[in-house]
Amino acid sequence: MDYTDRETLVDLRRTLHRVPEPAWCEFQTTARVVEACEDIGVDELHVGPDVVDSDARMAVPDDETLAEWIERAREAGVDESLLEQMAGGHTGAVAVLERGEGPTVGLRVDIDALHITESDEADHHPAGEGFRSEHEGCMHACGHDGHATIGVGVLAAVADSDFQGTLKVVFQPAEERVGGGKAVAESGHLDDIDYLYAVHLGLDHPTGEVVAGVGGFLAVSHLLAEFEGAGAHAGAHPEQGRNAVQAMATAVQNLYAIPRHDDGATRVNAGRAGGGTATNIIPEDAFVEGEVRGETTELMEYMKEKADRVVRSAAEMHECTVETHTEGEAPSAESDEALAAAFAAVADDHAGVDTVLDHDALGGSEDATYLMQRVQNTGGLACYVCVGTDHPGGHHTPTFDVDEDSLDIGVDALTDAIRGVAADRP
Amino acid sequence: MDYTDRETLVDLRRTLHRVPEPAWCEFQTTARVVEACEDIGVDELHVGPDVVDSDARMAVPDDETLAEWIERAREAGVDESLLEQMAGGHTGAVAVLERGEGPTVGLRVDIDALHITESDEADHHPAGEGFRSEHEGCMHACGHDGHATIGVGVLAAVADSDFQGTLKVVFQPAEERVGGGKAVAESGHLDDIDYLYAVHLGLDHPTGEVVAGVGGFLAVSHLLAEFEGAGAHAGAHPEQGRNAVQAMATAVQNLYAIPRHDDGATRVNAGRAGGGTATNIIPEDAFVEGEVRGETTELMEYMKEKADRVVRSAAEMHECTVETHTEGEAPSAESDEALAAAFAAVADDHAGVDTVLDHDALGGSEDATYLMQRVQNTGGLACYVCVGTDHPGGHHTPTFDVDEDSLDIGVDALTDAIRGVAADRP
Amino acid sequence: MDYTDRETLVDLRRTLHRVPEPAWCEFQTTARVVEACEDIGVDELHVGPDVVDSDARMAVPDDETLAEWIERAREAGVDESLLEQMAGGHTGAVAVLERGEGPTVGLRVDIDALHITESDEADHHPAGEGFRSEHEGCMHACGHDGHATIGVGVLAAVADSDFQGTLKVVFQPAEERVGGGKAVAESGHLDDIDYLYAVHLGLDHPTGEVVAGVGGFLAVSHLLAEFEGAGAHAGAHPEQGRNAVQAMATAVQNLYAIPRHDDGATRVNAGRAGGGTATNIIPEDAFVEGEVRGETTELMEYMKEKADRVVRSAAEMHECTVETHTEGEAPSAESDEALAAAFAAVADDHAGVDTVLDHDALGGSEDATYLMQRVQNTGGLACYVCVGTDHPGGHHTPTFDVDEDSLDIGVDALTDAIRGVAADRP
Amino acid sequence: MDYTDRETLVDLRRTLHRVPEPAWCEFQTTARVVEACEDIGVDELHVGPDVVDSDARMAVPDDETLAEWIERAREAGVDESLLEQMAGGHTGAVAVLERGEGPTVGLRVDIDALHITESDEADHHPAGEGFRSEHEGCMHACGHDGHATIGVGVLAAVADSDFQGTLKVVFQPAEERVGGGKAVAESGHLDDIDYLYAVHLGLDHPTGEVVAGVGGFLAVSHLLAEFEGAGAHAGAHPEQGRNAVQAMATAVQNLYAIPRHDDGATRVNAGRAGGGTATNIIPEDAFVEGEVRGETTELMEYMKEKADRVVRSAAEMHECTVETHTEGEAPSAESDEALAAAFAAVADDHAGVDTVLDHDALGGSEDATYLMQRVQNTGGLACYVCVGTDHPGGHHTPTFDVDEDSLDIGVDALTDAIRGVAADRP
Repeated sequence: MDYTDRETLVDLRRTLHRVPEPAWCEFQTTARVVEACEDIGVDELHVGPDVVDSDARMAVPDDETLAEWIERAREAGVDESLLEQMAGGHTGAVAVLERGEGPTVGLRVDIDALHITESDEADHHPAGEGFRSEHEGCMHACGHDGHATIGVGVLAAVADSDFQGTLKVVFQPAEERVGGGKAVAESGHLDDIDYLYAVHLGLDHPTGEVVAGVGGFLAVSHLLAEFEGAGAHAGAHPEQGRNAVQAMATAVQNLYAIPRHDDGATRVNAGRAGGGTATNIIPEDAFVEGEVRGETTELMEYMKEKADRVVRSAAEMHECTVETHTEGEAPSAESDEALAAAFAAVADDHAGVDTVLDHDALGGSEDATYLMQRVQNTGGLACYVCVGTDHPGGHHTPTFDVDEDSLDIGVDALTDAIRGVAADRP
Repeated sequence: MDYTDRETLVDLRRTLHRVPEPAWCEFQTTARVVEACEDIGVDELHVGPDVVDSDARMAVPDDETLAEWIERAREAGVDESLLEQMAGGHTGAVAVLERGEGPTVGLRVDIDALHITESDEADHHPAGEGFRSEHEGCMHACGHDGHATIGVGVLAAVADSDFQGTLKVVFQPAEERVGGGKAVAESGHLDDIDYLYAVHLGLDHPTGEVVAGVGGFLAVSHLLAEFEGAGAHAGAHPEQGRNAVQAMATAVQNLYAIPRHDDGATRVNAGRAGGGTATNIIPEDAFVEGEVRGETTELMEYMKEKADRVVRSAAEMHECTVETHTEGEAPSAESDEALAAAFAAVADDHAGVDTVLDHDALGGSEDATYLMQRVQNTGGLACYVCVGTDHPGGHHTPTFDVDEDSLDIGVDALTDAIRGVAADRP
Repeated sequence: MDYTDRETLVDLRRTLHRVPEPAWCEFQTTARVVEACEDIGVDELHVGPDVVDSDARMAVPDDETLAEWIERAREAGVDESLLEQMAGGHTGAVAVLERGEGPTVGLRVDIDALHITESDEADHHPAGEGFRSEHEGCMHACGHDGHATIGVGVLAAVADSDFQGTLKVVFQPAEERVGGGKAVAESGHLDDIDYLYAVHLGLDHPTGEVVAGVGGFLAVSHLLAEFEGAGAHAGAHPEQGRNAVQAMATAVQNLYAIPRHDDGATRVNAGRAGGGTATNIIPEDAFVEGEVRGETTELMEYMKEKADRVVRSAAEMHECTVETHTEGEAPSAESDEALAAAFAAVADDHAGVDTVLDHDALGGSEDATYLMQRVQNTGGLACYVCVGTDHPGGHHTPTFDVDEDSLDIGVDALTDAIRGVAADRP
Repeated sequence: MDYTDRETLVDLRRTLHRVPEPAWCEFQTTARVVEACEDIGVDELHVGPDVVDSDARMAVPDDETLAEWIERAREAGVDESLLEQMAGGHTGAVAVLERGEGPTVGLRVDIDALHITESDEADHHPAGEGFRSEHEGCMHACGHDGHATIGVGVLAAVADSDFQGTLKVVFQPAEERVGGGKAVAESGHLDDIDYLYAVHLGLDHPTGEVVAGVGGFLAVSHLLAEFEGAGAHAGAHPEQGRNAVQAMATAVQNLYAIPRHDDGATRVNAGRAGGGTATNIIPEDAFVEGEVRGETTELMEYMKEKADRVVRSAAEMHECTVETHTEGEAPSAESDEALAAAFAAVADDHAGVDTVLDHDALGGSEDATYLMQRVQNTGGLACYVCVGTDHPGGHHTPTFDVDEDSLDIGVDALTDAIRGVAADRP
């Protein structure tokens, strides 16, 4: 197949859209990407545990969940030996193209989907065109099907070009849970990268608009606190309980009350909380699953430390024990101007692009920041670009969709930028 | 079948034990009880909406749940016309025996089961003997299979005796949720009852011990509060949320802090609480499901009013709406001494009984109190008796079981007591 | 002066009423009592540190407060050497009368006043008659002026009687703060007492009614928790504060939410709380002053342990330190029936008594319980009696007053009871 | 006296330093300023109610406090007719100089002091030099003695110059409580001002450094919430109380938990909180005194609305009533660049100035913003300048002091700037 062809790319995107898979369960997705890379003919192709620092993965689902998604992939015909390589949730891939002397350029795309049920209304394009999610309750509602497609498209286009140097395309799992970035950053694959681009579609920018340097990522940490107390009959022996729901409620109240910080914006959310078993039983178990954020990594760390203290003290107050886990994490980051400028220059020349913004702040979080930071810390430059796309519904909603015209723009502009920085070493 | 026969009763109890059904879903159980009543030959048999004041039912499950249990009963061969009568969760039965002039005596037994998974250990008698629950996750863990059996046994034994008067045996649904008592009490069936007995097995009394007059029921009310706020992205727009989990946490903290009362014991428990959808979304929905109790009905009402205020104010504080429902309720009650004495006298004569306690306090709640109160308010007497039974596990635990020898004791003692009060009009 | 004379006793009571003094500041009161004891001619008279176990005193005011009240006593002409003995708040006295062979009988009366401003309305008897408090803001609003007078009256009357044995009258300081009982109990003076009476006027019983055996004392513990955090400018550097008011608020919320107990009634109250310095400073200091109670001493201890945990965890949650002090404490207690019966018998014979109640429950707290417990633990009997008195205003209100007729009843009945138990050894 | 003379100004500053007076109690201060204005010979001098919109004053102390400070001023010899004009806390003054055709230029200085006890250490300059505060517990710890002096100095210097136009110097009371700005803004005196300067000494800038345009004022609102419930005996009848301390604690917990806002920084502080009367009484009264702030006035309003909701709901939850008052308030503001530039230009020429900063953010709050906003809204320009001064202790601390050399700099630079803008109309 010719992945420099627009129709092929649209087909690929729709194929991926049909089989959305959540964090660390991207078995079919990875298989399809691997197939494309082999078609294109890369020089190295990393899959399985070699893609990441396995221990640095966060938010890996339990064995039962992994088994379900593996079984689904098996039924869909994924090759058994590839499934074996990906055992334990080792999804994702790193494809390497070696084209002689020149710098090493990286492109990071993410590939996971969300636990959202896709709209089945006829005017929702994937539903109307017949490529709606076949995994009910799971959906590509953030465009990662498009990102993976762009990754493949760039790989094919660069392979087909006068590019001199090395290209690494990273197909990263588990971005939605901010669970994969750290593991990729610590894999070693980035340590020789001179220039890294990461790309996102949409973000409320229309088709034809691109942002050359996205910044303002909020550092984020997801935390899970599980309280364990002791049940007791609420009528007969209330004093024998150690009330985990009281601990949870005390924690929630005080989490939101962590002091604001003069150095910049902070956030906290007890996004999910719950506990207890029956009306007449003093609650024995409870949990809070939440997140803290900061305009800088330091501010996130400040919030995280406070949150940890709140949770521990709330447990102690109600004689419960508590276990806390970091479920996902990402630092803040900024795009390097030189790399953004290189992208802006080539994007501006593209027929489909009518507006180029030099900079925009994300105002959210994303674990590409781990990769960007890694490259920046080892002497390289990193840049996060946004390729606008008309999206009818907002990101993370059941009617989200991407305008497939933006795939071309993304592939072309990134390919040109990669060729450019390889040649000009900004 | 001869329901005055011990073996028949044990068989009946085991049959019922195999098919435990939760509140208002006792379709097979009711069918089996109806079959027995018809076998015995009662003069009136009420089933369907006629059993209760339909609108006074509490804790009725949603249509989907009802449909599942009806389907299960249909597959088990329950007669379609009976299922139609019970549509909408109208389970339970009232059987009437008319035996000439004499007072009207009532016996109330409850028939529902619990959402508990029964032990499958070999030394758990029902598992070892092959009559473990066939409805995985549902279990007769409080002896209501035995209560229903005793109801049938007493009906058969009284029918077979010199009893003069009218006997009404009430097979009440939904006691575990304190959801059925009020609906039965307001059905009209009790309004001509002169003497009412209610019976419970076990309660930590061994086989051979009976309690003639149980009292000290805590009045109870189950409440469900559902908060609705508005979601928002926790990183990008925390100010746009109206946080239902904050409302829930504020409610939980303040529910437990309702002032103690000088008139007697009170209780409060937020037994289940939860809310939210994702770590990065300001929680839009949350709930508290709990209970309040009082040593008297007035004390329970005091707690209920305070709890309602707490829940409403917590919602208002966080700009949420809240809907509150009473999911179940029961007043406090005391057994009439004259009726207890009548039972004590005959129980003491029974060969299997070695200890008769005149009085004991339950320390828990039970909606037989609605029936007792109704009878007492219309000029009758009411008494709650306990028939001890060796139970290896505690009530409401996976290893609960009853000693089947206690079924005989219950049937015999109650039959004699009913005959006695009909003759002597205490 | 003849303290067996009614007029003399009324004068004494009015003298004491004029100079109310709070806990451990009863310098003038003690001086006046000492003068009376010397007049009567006791065999031993303990004053100063010898009255109590000095270290076991609770709620002793700070040096400045002590100095103010000492100065006031000095100006009123109290003997300098007596003031020296009482230095550091060693008020109170133990008077001993030795009258040959016979049991040792004790009488405990309390002598301190309250921080209440006495009514100056003409129809408030002390105001109308000119013996209203001369210590503005301090008042005998609980009848301890009468109690001290009864102590003196009994001492004189027993001295003047055929009593055989030893009489110890304990004039106890600091009852209102439950701060003096423990220190007296541990002084050693009680260890040889065979029979102990304690007496209280009023308690909503009218003149002519007495209660022979008061019980139902709630065990109580007063706690003071002082939080210390760190201030910071609330606008410029909120993150630099460690917020003591947040710690206090978290503590208050969770104190009231300590679980109820199946063994009986408990109480908790954060009666005073506060903190902070200015609207724009993160609060650096805060406190909670409160109490816990229990129907039994064990229940009070349960509450105290929970309260301590709440306070410590609340401090930890907000990175504050906390110091907690027990400001006062008293166990629960019951009167011995034999001793109550002895009192009831003689009281019933008294012309001024028309009703004798065998028993009544206090429903409050009082640290005579420490003394009662001490005597009971060392093999003696103890009994708390109430001598009714018409009191226009409630206890602890600005219009409280005692009917001086009840002083006679108290002196006579107690004298007869003491003579009786010495003779009959019940 | 010649107020263009440096020694005279230093004397004036020291005189004012000796008699610090809090918000709306600046009776001696105003009298001294009035004397100076009369000496200089102004064309109009407004004192008393004419200075402000009387009803728009915030944080006016109670009559008793006003009376104390008036009495103190009377004893210090302040003229009785002036005191009468200032009755009810109508302090401050507006002095007007008319010098022919030209724009109207305003200068705002604030004159109140703080409730801080001034250091008496010899190395604290005012203590060492003998002009330490004579009003123990009150102190000019924020340099307003210097501000008032600069106001007088500029008035004298402009009067003595070639200035063409009208100059209004506003001596504003009650800045420390953000209580006076609004009342001055709504007085009408500002409505014809074309150019307004406000000035502050120090702010961590050393002598020789000036900031031409201060901005970044946080909008602020001080709130006082007073809860009233019902007392009850905590042992005997806890259920009869309506607990104001519980309401307060619930409010505090939820105030700090008001959601952060995406539009910018917000702040909240429950700076003072308290309540209750005695350990054994359910608390009947409580209060929270605090503040909210926002990077913009809208953000402050957002916080204020939320805070109000929290306080009302907390009261309702515990069946208390609550009264809330706004005790002080100020919007955010920015300095106009043109006016800042005019000041920067002349300041740069001054021999004593070595550094001129165009802009700095205050990061705190100040009610000059009301005046700035008023002038800006009526078509004028406004600018807040900072004149650096070496200050040994921080603002609002007992060792704060100003370097008197900075008085000259302030007077000279402001005089030149005022002359400049009058001539050049930027």
